[in-house]
Amino acid sequence: MAQLIADRRDVDFVLHEQLNASSFSKYEKFGEFNKKTIDMIVSEARSFAIKEIYPTQVLADKGCTFDNGQVKVPESFHRVNELFLKGEWLGMADSPEYGGGGMPKTVSLAVNEYFIGANVSFMLYHGLTHGAAKMIEEIGTDEQKKMFCKNLYSGKWAGTMLLTEPEAGSDVGVLTTKAIPNGDGTFNIVGNKIFISGGDHDLAENIIHPVLARVEGDAPGTKGISLFLVPKYRVNKDGSLGEFNDVMCTGIEHKMGLNGSATCSLTLGGSGKCVGTLLGERSKGMRSMFIMMNDARQLVGLQGFSVATTAYIHALNYARERVQGAHLMKPKEGGVQIINHPDVRRNLLMMKAYVEGIRSMIYYSGTLHDRKAVAETAEEKAFCENMLAILTPIIKGYGTDRTLDVCSLGVQVHGGYGYCKDFPAEQLMRDCKIFQIYEGTNGIQAMDLLGRKIGMENGKPFMVFLGEIKKCIDGAKKTPELSSLAEKADAALTQYSETIMLLGKTAMTDVMKAYAHATPLLDTTGDMVMTWMLLWRATIAKEALTKNAKSKDTAFYEGQIRTCEFFVSSLLPVTLGRLESIRALNTAAIDIDEASFGTK
Amino acid sequence: MAQLIADRRDVDFVLHEQLNASSFSKYEKFGEFNKKTIDMIVSEARSFAIKEIYPTQVLADKGCTFDNGQVKVPESFHRVNELFLKGEWLGMADSPEYGGGGMPKTVSLAVNEYFIGANVSFMLYHGLTHGAAKMIEEIGTDEQKKMFCKNLYSGKWAGTMLLTEPEAGSDVGVLTTKAIPNGDGTFNIVGNKIFISGGDHDLAENIIHPVLARVEGDAPGTKGISLFLVPKYRVNKDGSLGEFNDVMCTGIEHKMGLNGSATCSLTLGGSGKCVGTLLGERSKGMRSMFIMMNDARQLVGLQGFSVATTAYIHALNYARERVQGAHLMKPKEGGVQIINHPDVRRNLLMMKAYVEGIRSMIYYSGTLHDRKAVAETAEEKAFCENMLAILTPIIKGYGTDRTLDVCSLGVQVHGGYGYCKDFPAEQLMRDCKIFQIYEGTNGIQAMDLLGRKIGMENGKPFMVFLGEIKKCIDGAKKTPELSSLAEKADAALTQYSETIMLLGKTAMTDVMKAYAHATPLLDTTGDMVMTWMLLWRATIAKEALTKNAKSKDTAFYEGQIRTCEFFVSSLLPVTLGRLESIRALNTAAIDIDEASFGTK
Repeated sequence: MAQLIADRRDVDFVLHEQLNASSFSKYEKFGEFNKKTIDMIVSEARSFAIKEIYPTQVLADKGCTFDNGQVKVPESFHRVNELFLKGEWLGMADSPEYGGGGMPKTVSLAVNEYFIGANVSFMLYHGLTHGAAKMIEEIGTDEQKKMFCKNLYSGKWAGTMLLTEPEAGSDVGVLTTKAIPNGDGTFNIVGNKIFISGGDHDLAENIIHPVLARVEGDAPGTKGISLFLVPKYRVNKDGSLGEFNDVMCTGIEHKMGLNGSATCSLTLGGSGKCVGTLLGERSKGMRSMFIMMNDARQLVGLQGFSVATTAYIHALNYARERVQGAHLMKPKEGGVQIINHPDVRRNLLMMKAYVEGIRSMIYYSGTLHDRKAVAETAEEKAFCENMLAILTPIIKGYGTDRTLDVCSLGVQVHGGYGYCKDFPAEQLMRDCKIFQIYEGTNGIQAMDLLGRKIGMENGKPFMVFLGEIKKCIDGAKKTPELSSLAEKADAALTQYSETIMLLGKTAMTDVMKAYAHATPLLDTTGDMVMTWMLLWRATIAKEALTKNAKSKDTAFYEGQIRTCEFFVSSLLPVTLGRLESIRALNTAAIDIDEASFGTK
Repeated sequence: MAQLIADRRDVDFVLHEQLNASSFSKYEKFGEFNKKTIDMIVSEARSFAIKEIYPTQVLADKGCTFDNGQVKVPESFHRVNELFLKGEWLGMADSPEYGGGGMPKTVSLAVNEYFIGANVSFMLYHGLTHGAAKMIEEIGTDEQKKMFCKNLYSGKWAGTMLLTEPEAGSDVGVLTTKAIPNGDGTFNIVGNKIFISGGDHDLAENIIHPVLARVEGDAPGTKGISLFLVPKYRVNKDGSLGEFNDVMCTGIEHKMGLNGSATCSLTLGGSGKCVGTLLGERSKGMRSMFIMMNDARQLVGLQGFSVATTAYIHALNYARERVQGAHLMKPKEGGVQIINHPDVRRNLLMMKAYVEGIRSMIYYSGTLHDRKAVAETAEEKAFCENMLAILTPIIKGYGTDRTLDVCSLGVQVHGGYGYCKDFPAEQLMRDCKIFQIYEGTNGIQAMDLLGRKIGMENGKPFMVFLGEIKKCIDGAKKTPELSSLAEKADAALTQYSETIMLLGKTAMTDVMKAYAHATPLLDTTGDMVMTWMLLWRATIAKEALTKNAKSKDTAFYEGQIRTCEFFVSSLLPVTLGRLESIRALNTAAIDIDEASFGTK
């Protein structure tokens, strides 16, 4: 089967050679998941993704329909949805107690890369359902868990997340949705929510909405916000569906892309009959939301990355086939495949570097989840949690910024055809733009990194994070042929560390000045993680080549070394320039008078 | 009238304070165009653009229709087209001999910025018509000029440009369209062309197609290509329309954006009845095409820039109105307009810097056209031609690359709303992506800069180009408060010059190695031009402030200095990093084995 989404060889490389995912099978929790099983799972997922999900991607772009209060997903989603649920993919990495498959998260990321890369808007419904189930599992009462978790993990019911209101987007605290106690432990919910992905659709018989709202009289701002569980149809004690719960879809958005995903406006309690139950503690809604937000943000990073990897493979396939223009060294010998042209090669190598670096970063974050799940010491658990906290804004923010770059280059490699709907490239570019925005804009991710993550616990976890990068660099220094790349990476890490110190200190005394450089900070931090991941890859590849790798693997391993060389030699100097610009701490962006931006 | 497209104050600043456009009125050719007249023209254009053209922009996105061989433009285009033609805007800067308005090109660029910013796909038809008319005027026979020019400049007829074929995109030389001599001076044309903007439509009674084709038996490759004039309907000796000329539209593309512009596939001579006349010399078609190509590429740069300026103004207006989140320094005082947040300010200032820098670059290129038109010495004419030759790939390539950045930031500033079709931001982003591709992909622009422009005439014109930048920097050094920015710019120019020398030398011995760095070269060259333009602006602004500018202008002038400060302090260090990366001359992108890019 030709490569169409992710490059299987590289997926296997990260799973087994870089991260040793089967090593988790030594723990009882993951006992079944040895290498053979993992390979079988990934093969099955890949085959399902290419044969069944991928054909629905282009159909997804036609969009959902909204008629008479009802949302319908693209017709083609129904059959593939049945197969997806039958395959028990939704809860593959979740607790067997609720019907989950108990797979290591790391492995599920490879599976999801194929699925999401095959049709991101279809998979979004399942991502949301999974998030809602996980949230209920983590903070719900036993009754709530019993009532909802199994049906969500099986996909019989769907889930969402209701945060945004017309005047409360990035600033959740100003929301106006109200919860009025009914006296019987339930609440009457009244409000309007917008931008709700999967807020209504016909893929499941019921939809369970976790809703942010304020109990009447509770504190203003984020402090007084509680979380409620509000089903579309009420659920009877025996688990059967009851009456309609007054959650009305009033419309769907017409968007740039991701059109297979219904983005809904919902009115809750328009007829005064919307009933919800408290999820987690009262007035602790934001805290609960933040627990899930990290998962949600990592998922957005995965969404972006999966679209990027598809964009890369499509561009690569096209560049290997399309004949156009002579080879620069043989101008008289007629047309060659465009992959022979230096500028096209540069574009492809840039795409490859980001895609592979981000794949390693995301799968690595999966191992942190798995290590946390089997951690035997508090230190190990804290290490995993802190690393995940630091990596989250990078996976979400940096990951999706590079996704747009990769998808835009993907269109570019296709030339004029890339702009036409006959090729998937342009849809991928349109689909991916939202990832820079939802679940906290990338500007907010940058502020999260600067304001919350770097200084967390007096900066100790961030030092540990830098220490992990340093360890990899020191390892590469000992590898012949990589030592000069490692030296460059080391010099960059030193400059990066100094910049961080300066910026962290600035943030304590002059917050505006520091935050004007939050985005370049996110950029450069991501670049350092890419350096880490690509150097790590190159070290393994070099070792394999030294040990006489099979000849069919030689090109792959050599490619790893070239990719690292390209990143360190051609992209890292740009990072150094950006670090220099941060250190200048220029304040023009905050000094400039509002009137100076332009005439009103 | 609120700012909706370009900021009028800045347009006036560039026209009068930076470029002194009215000074051309001292020449007879431009005698009428004094400051008062120029201002009146720009005011009229702006008002027409905002009131009449802009409302058709969103309607353009619905696209054209193709039915039974006929293309129809969006219905709303017809009325505004009548007004546009009645206003005699199409030939505003062309020769009065053919009904043109004789306006300086510089002024027409300001007019076109408003028009194109108001609806780029509508204006594309006129851009193509104008290009075809200009080409006939430059290289046509007296009979061809008489037959076509007046009707094209008036917009009674439309024009196109037929280059691309399915297998001949960037590589024009492999085209297969044939021209068979009829013995009476005319040729029978047979072939298929694709991606023809405005290839068919209902905005004009006739469409005149300049067509690249090969006379049967002529040399293969670009050397044997000739240019022909092929009307949709034949034209009788008396100028009336004759029979259909067998130019059949077989379909239109469905695209990411620019949907108001019909991108057509055309079959010429499908029934053997397509007759054309030679335009220019036989087998010199590519040379003729290249003369026009520079104008066409500058036009694409203008298209991108005009969309970018609209994207900036929309984002700025939104950021000034949208209340979301508290001020970082006053976290307890409730929501403020998002223009108060440092990261949003940074995004806006980046957009402003590119938009204003590119406006100056493009209008400056207009003055070069005008200076050339009135040049009294061969030196002056050569200076203008050479500067335009060097600036063309920068205007087209760098300009449209930054346009995508600006439009993407425009969506970002709007948050989730930016992704929805209720706001124009997402359409602008979709519309602008094609500018990086058509009229020579930006990869080709980069190769043009490296391969043709830098080494042209042994590098002398390029030294003159660098000398112009240096002059501006030296001037700024003498301006108090700008001297430190000027010193930084000077250091960057030195590094840039060294990099150019190295890369130029490399291109002579190792073409693959050099061309792998063509795109970063284009990027950094564009950055140097931005530095030049913004420092030039700041110098004028500083002078005006020193001379006690009117208080209503203070914010504007101070904004000029802040923008320059931002670019030099926060963006130029990144350029220096990119120059460093070019100098490393890493060859990973060309060394990497094709198989190493990924599994087949």
